[in-house]
Amino acid sequence: MNAGVHICEVGPRDGLQNAHHLMPTEAKKAWIRALAAAGLKEIEVGSFVPPKLIPAMADTGEIVRDAVSIPGIKVVALAPNLKGFQRALEAGAHKVTFPVSASRKHSESNVRMTPEQMIEEVRRCAQFPHPGAEIEGAVSTAFGCTMQGEVPEDDVVRIAAALAEFCDCVALADTVGYANPAQIKRIFAKVRKAIGSKLEAAHLHNTRGLGLANALAAYEEGVRHFDSSMGGLGGCPFAPGASGNVITEDLVFMFESMGIKTGIDLEKLFLARKILIQGLPDEPIYGHTPDAGLPKGFRAAA
Amino acid sequence: MNAGVHICEVGPRDGLQNAHHLMPTEAKKAWIRALAAAGLKEIEVGSFVPPKLIPAMADTGEIVRDAVSIPGIKVVALAPNLKGFQRALEAGAHKVTFPVSASRKHSESNVRMTPEQMIEEVRRCAQFPHPGAEIEGAVSTAFGCTMQGEVPEDDVVRIAAALAEFCDCVALADTVGYANPAQIKRIFAKVRKAIGSKLEAAHLHNTRGLGLANALAAYEEGVRHFDSSMGGLGGCPFAPGASGNVITEDLVFMFESMGIKTGIDLEKLFLARKILIQGLPDEPIYGHTPDAGLPKGFRAAA
Repeated sequence: MNAGVHICEVGPRDGLQNAHHLMPTEAKKAWIRALAAAGLKEIEVGSFVPPKLIPAMADTGEIVRDAVSIPGIKVVALAPNLKGFQRALEAGAHKVTFPVSASRKHSESNVRMTPEQMIEEVRRCAQFPHPGAEIEGAVSTAFGCTMQGEVPEDDVVRIAAALAEFCDCVALADTVGYANPAQIKRIFAKVRKAIGSKLEAAHLHNTRGLGLANALAAYEEGVRHFDSSMGGLGGCPFAPGASGNVITEDLVFMFESMGIKTGIDLEKLFLARKILIQGLPDEPIYGHTPDAGLPKGFRAAA
Repeated sequence: MNAGVHICEVGPRDGLQNAHHLMPTEAKKAWIRALAAAGLKEIEVGSFVPPKLIPAMADTGEIVRDAVSIPGIKVVALAPNLKGFQRALEAGAHKVTFPVSASRKHSESNVRMTPEQMIEEVRRCAQFPHPGAEIEGAVSTAFGCTMQGEVPEDDVVRIAAALAEFCDCVALADTVGYANPAQIKRIFAKVRKAIGSKLEAAHLHNTRGLGLANALAAYEEGVRHFDSSMGGLGGCPFAPGASGNVITEDLVFMFESMGIKTGIDLEKLFLARKILIQGLPDEPIYGHTPDAGLPKGFRAAA
């Protein structure tokens, strides 16, 4: 029917950094392997931030080194600055994503820099030798901020355009789940007009239940790269009121049932979900499709 | 921005008939009044089915008689046959909805008739004098069936066309939450081509989390009437595996945030939700938007 979509599982990073419980390192490794076995081709496995700020990410170096040994997947890590970037490169990450808040207040809380300072920090990283590693600039709070409220669309376009100068790709993130489908289409179109095909991923949260509707809107606007989190884990520890990412299981089900290929095997994805639950038994894990099961006679996209 | 959408709250019928607990009659009345106060202009308040089959609907006559005394709302009741229709008319219902399953298996389980027999039963009702009362034919399991699996689209079109001959309006229902956005657009377009503006409501369930994405797809296809259920209550007692309706609170939030008027006040809707919870304290009540709260600086559609 079409070329399909590309899904990046961000649960091991965005999910676990905001979980109420710590997942043991070996359990993380098993989960990431199960995700890869289900057909996820890109996995954001951790964040190179100070362990005392986010203890759940303290083992990111070891996790990246393990993940890059899995054939056929792109291993992504988040870095907030040059130091984190260097650690990501040392561990062998294939792609490093940098969060650049369009909200000044969120930026100062999240990375202790203004958006402009953070853009310069990412530029510094891009100028640092990084053979074989991609750099993604992720414009966070691109659709609103729990602290600042409305985020001017011009700020989003300006930051995306600045990042596109030296990043390999740019993502727009609804960090706190404020986006609506009309806004998704409008802002993605504006940014696409400014930076063209450098605009890649939609990083959506399901805070107000609109995650899949927003993903559908983004798809209709031309977006083919999506971040999501198994079990709807996720949020942002420095954005009050943020909650779970769009749920990988439901996102894959939506696209596959529409005839849009994801390359992901739903039954194997449900196995990976069992591994997640085993590794994080006390955490609430969401997902309508795994709870309800696949429809009778369901066929994945051909 | 546009003429807006019309939302029919079906919780008092579709929600309560599938709830695990009985809601006292006085609590139902208070909830329906609170829904009306929030701006709901159409409420499906009950079902004229044999009380021994669905005890939760035993007080539907009293509920309808009370609800029709509320100014400015359209009071809807479900009837499965002529006897139920006559009881609905006696109670003063403004609109009576008849479920006609496109799935033969579901039809036989739900109303003990084949789809063809049920169409004839609705025709008999339409021929019975019903001054001032509208008749809706609702094609249920229009997007798939937990018992039959796939439901041929031609069956849906054929049943909708038959109903459009003598019904005031026709709805398509995803009774068991099998629909996906591509299918929603395709089938609504096919039925619209067959029956034009007699096609009105999309009745969607959130079983696999796609409720809002499907509502968005239906809206984009031209649908302006939506059924939904407060707190995501709902399902079908005779369709195994069916679960909650699309959540009214989240549906209203989605449309209002997109600038599409619903006529519903979200703060008052959250008050009605409190009344629901008081009346049904042990039932799980869902809703992302009420849990997360409205975004900072949120503005309803103007």
